Amino acid sequence: MKRIVLVRHGESQWNKENRFTGWTNVDLSEKGLQEAFEAGKTLREKGFTFDIAYTSYLKRAIKTLNNVLDAMDLDWIPVRKSWRLNEKHYGMLQGLNKAETAAKYGDEQVLVWRRSYDVEPLPLPEDDPNSATLDKRYALVPDEYIPRTEALKQCIERVMPYWESEIFPRLKQVDNIVVVAHGNSLRGVVKHLKGISDSDIVKLNIPTAVPYVFEFDDDLKLVKDYYLADPAELAAKQAAVANQGKAKL
Amino acid sequence: MKRIVLVRHGESQWNKENRFTGWTNVDLSEKGLQEAFEAGKTLREKGFTFDIAYTSYLKRAIKTLNNVLDAMDLDWIPVRKSWRLNEKHYGMLQGLNKAETAAKYGDEQVLVWRRSYDVEPLPLPEDDPNSATLDKRYALVPDEYIPRTEALKQCIERVMPYWESEIFPRLKQVDNIVVVAHGNSLRGVVKHLKGISDSDIVKLNIPTAVPYVFEFDDDLKLVKDYYLADPAELAAKQAAVANQGKAKL
Repeated sequence: MKRIVLVRHGESQWNKENRFTGWTNVDLSEKGLQEAFEAGKTLREKGFTFDIAYTSYLKRAIKTLNNVLDAMDLDWIPVRKSWRLNEKHYGMLQGLNKAETAAKYGDEQVLVWRRSYDVEPLPLPEDDPNSATLDKRYALVPDEYIPRTEALKQCIERVMPYWESEIFPRLKQVDNIVVVAHGNSLRGVVKHLKGISDSDIVKLNIPTAVPYVFEFDDDLKLVKDYYLADPAELAAKQAAVANQGKAKL
Repeated sequence: MKRIVLVRHGESQWNKENRFTGWTNVDLSEKGLQEAFEAGKTLREKGFTFDIAYTSYLKRAIKTLNNVLDAMDLDWIPVRKSWRLNEKHYGMLQGLNKAETAAKYGDEQVLVWRRSYDVEPLPLPEDDPNSATLDKRYALVPDEYIPRTEALKQCIERVMPYWESEIFPRLKQVDNIVVVAHGNSLRGVVKHLKGISDSDIVKLNIPTAVPYVFEFDDDLKLVKDYYLADPAELAAKQAAVANQGKAKL
């Protein structure tokens, strides 16, 4: 039996402040660090191990992975990082408070921006100082690959080449892979693995720092998938994620 | 100008307790985590950056590196890990309190075990439960490469193939490399780079978590080397390391 475990990063500073993050390189909160360590402890207690790990170029995912591996005593395994696993780019919304944006534009418009499959937020201008083309971590990425905004569709189309060329084929060589990434980049993976429709994938809320296990047979056919969490805790975490975009009074 | 920066891991739990560690996978102390983060802050403030990082298979080095990169906002760079950068294997001394060992065998014998170039401590028995041959992190390393004890000479002979084949040649491709490892594995690197004799290298005390900078010209000829630290702080740290093996009353 072979396994890929997906983990969405723990709570970040901006999750806490309810702001759109996207490619902004926000750190984990103390709670987020702790959530990540707990996820690693759960994995270890359930007898999981990993041969290789993948993560994005964003600090909140990398530090979640570091804490998961620390808790599992697996710090030493190879870790590969790719910008293709980054969160969806939120364009001009990056940095805005979600509740304020919702109060101004209405829950519906925010839900469209956050959750429609193919409507992207307004793009960052080319000369925006926050443009990723100016960030040296993307210096080796062709400028035309670097987004200024993304709908979920575009985010998934950017994740898939890395998934198809690097992560999934690696399962022929090793039995256990962990991928620590973001709500929307992981939606892309789940959509692909489970054949979820464009309209249904936008309703899928992946909770933070809960290991999401995919089991495959030796022909790499998906056998089953499940969260490694207590069902009540899982439901509470999923509801919290779903409510993030609603206005707060 | 090209640079390789060596960093010895921050204080570990067993440094604190004054015990021989070697290949035992001891965690950093709180002070060690903080030292590592401070080293990263100093590097950032002095304008350093890195293209790739190397470390050992041991948690105290990996977590030091993670903290250095976090402080420099360089979490995203590639990190390569190798068992060849591990600390010297201390054989039967691993786990013993250095001060107690010194009180029992005398400062001189402990100094020989710790600091002679080619006298190794008594080896771990083949069936010892702490043998690295039983540890899955070394599963891909041929058993005959895995030490049961090492003199500094043997430690250096095990480090050098990785240095010569992986780390140093990489300087043709990139300009800035960081290597986070251990007191004795780094002695090997410094001995090689500076042509230090067998008898002099045992007297070299590399302080914990102080960046040790080596600058090279474009032909990879060593131009100069220096610690990135206040001289008084550096002297205090070096004295602390030199005194670790003395008996405490």
